[in-house]
Amino acid sequence: MGNSSATYRPIIAVTMGDPAGIGPEITIRALSDPAIYSACRPIVIGDADVLEQVMPIVSDGSLVIHKAADVSDALFQYGVIDIIDIGAVDCSTLQPGRVSAQAGEAAYLYIEKAIQLAQSGIVDATVTNPINKEALNLAGRHYAGHTEIYADLTNTKNVTMLLAHGPLRVVHVSTHVSLRRACDLVKKERILDVIRIADDACRRLGIDSPRIAVAGLNPHSGENGLFGTEEAEEIIPAIEAAREEGISAEGPVPPDTVFSKAQGGMYDIVVAMYHDQGHIPLKLAGFKLDEKTGRWTNISGVNITLGLPIIRTSVDHGTAFDQAWKGTASPMSLIEAINYAIRLANVKNGGRRQ
Amino acid sequence: MGNSSATYRPIIAVTMGDPAGIGPEITIRALSDPAIYSACRPIVIGDADVLEQVMPIVSDGSLVIHKAADVSDALFQYGVIDIIDIGAVDCSTLQPGRVSAQAGEAAYLYIEKAIQLAQSGIVDATVTNPINKEALNLAGRHYAGHTEIYADLTNTKNVTMLLAHGPLRVVHVSTHVSLRRACDLVKKERILDVIRIADDACRRLGIDSPRIAVAGLNPHSGENGLFGTEEAEEIIPAIEAAREEGISAEGPVPPDTVFSKAQGGMYDIVVAMYHDQGHIPLKLAGFKLDEKTGRWTNISGVNITLGLPIIRTSVDHGTAFDQAWKGTASPMSLIEAINYAIRLANVKNGGRRQ
Repeated sequence: MGNSSATYRPIIAVTMGDPAGIGPEITIRALSDPAIYSACRPIVIGDADVLEQVMPIVSDGSLVIHKAADVSDALFQYGVIDIIDIGAVDCSTLQPGRVSAQAGEAAYLYIEKAIQLAQSGIVDATVTNPINKEALNLAGRHYAGHTEIYADLTNTKNVTMLLAHGPLRVVHVSTHVSLRRACDLVKKERILDVIRIADDACRRLGIDSPRIAVAGLNPHSGENGLFGTEEAEEIIPAIEAAREEGISAEGPVPPDTVFSKAQGGMYDIVVAMYHDQGHIPLKLAGFKLDEKTGRWTNISGVNITLGLPIIRTSVDHGTAFDQAWKGTASPMSLIEAINYAIRLANVKNGGRRQ
Repeated sequence: MGNSSATYRPIIAVTMGDPAGIGPEITIRALSDPAIYSACRPIVIGDADVLEQVMPIVSDGSLVIHKAADVSDALFQYGVIDIIDIGAVDCSTLQPGRVSAQAGEAAYLYIEKAIQLAQSGIVDATVTNPINKEALNLAGRHYAGHTEIYADLTNTKNVTMLLAHGPLRVVHVSTHVSLRRACDLVKKERILDVIRIADDACRRLGIDSPRIAVAGLNPHSGENGLFGTEEAEEIIPAIEAAREEGISAEGPVPPDTVFSKAQGGMYDIVVAMYHDQGHIPLKLAGFKLDEKTGRWTNISGVNITLGLPIIRTSVDHGTAFDQAWKGTASPMSLIEAINYAIRLANVKNGGRRQ
């Protein structure tokens, strides 16, 4: 009691992602970190044969793979990668870096299994590796992506994406719409909803008194109506309504300084008015390009789906087929996603003990 | 010949900015760096009495101030700050951190003198410290800011702002308009003009084969028309026209990765479609907030006015009256502005020798 070894370590299901992408190798690299095992009990949902094939590319041989018949069979000790082997891939025909129905179907089955385990309470949270939409569709699984699969299989209507990297956290008033349409969607009720979602998300992350920045839409937040009226007509009324509910929302904060302020710790989360307002700073902070190769050497950032009955965090990058099975892909984003899943699970579990 | 000591060191006029702001102290701090004197011959245009008052706040006493009657009288040696003393301020009545007509008029006179010196070819470039618009107006100098003063006094009609920080450089298709209006301004002819300006600006900075990224307007550059049509209708035609002129323009590059790519050295400059698309990444990269004090501890970034007959670079921050005369303000942005002025002057001067 009071001893850290007695603290409950949540069980985290990590899907392997598209087997032909970088998912298998970054999974092994992320699980090469002993700190992960101190904080949680990870279990991979994937194909053991694929992990075995990828292992020599990224590991010095000190890690072993353990096929767990089910979660209760897992060893959860550093040095052993527990995997629930779905056995969906034939390694003799799988081509790394190629889109295939086989890989798409396998990726789908991993997600389905992870969701089942989370819904039945056998695992505390799920973390997803990247999948390929085309492969998914070739397999006859007609979803736009993870979020749609999760919403469908858990019967959830409204989900919201939270993007995080280091001290930056962002939720968006709109995402995949044109910039003109995004301007139309800057409406008091929607902004108020997203402020509430931001506040709730922070509390789920264990932040007791979330400080929420609401960004403006226009340059300098419109400079008192000189360049745009949405701040006065929609954003300020939403902030006032949120404050009346006891939410600590501030703004409109000028879009070009709000992220520097959040980065500096002034806010716990930013409500962004449109896709790129939030994505530009997060990707600038998290994505690093190698000038010589023109490749991303470090892609950090986590995507968290809010509104589901279960916990789901995800890497914030794709399958990177051009880099697959080469051992060069960075596990940073996956490690961050696992850490966010642990944090969400710990808060949800309260003071639960092992 | 071929010896670096024989290389022409351009003469750079640095205006002191509003005397009640952080301009005087960051000027002294910037000129405390011997590297500046190796690369150029700086001369301050300001009030010697103000510099003398501020000196003990930021210096250990090793620097001396030298009033130069004119530029030919300057010593240009490290350890001595040459100043053309405009004598516009009465230090017994000047209040640090306060808006005043006296300070506004002084700031205007420094700029006017710097422009005169540059136009007559006596100095190679001008670098400006921050001024306060309200003070300027109290003094009866009715300008919105530096850019308008420079345009007016040099009879220039069209100027464009280039923002730079480290490897990031940005020019904008529009700036101080609402986001809705900014969408309307995304037109082929204007984009093509800005691509040409970007190309020319890079060449003036000594980049022989500029690589220009043209950002999209919509998320994912519209994802083939799914979220917006401006990419297909306006941006791609502008890029094609630029390429026909021999300009190496690429795009539309998705707005949320273009700055990470430029940061990683893939592009020399980004053509941004609206104010915040360019300002968000530059300020995130350049502005650092101190969590404890809630103050900016480091504000980096340079603002360069393109289209003038003379060279003008500027700090990318304001007078910071709350921090004035305390010795805490960072000179980073001013040092970057001086270095950009040197670079522009050297390219303009070609192989000129001392």
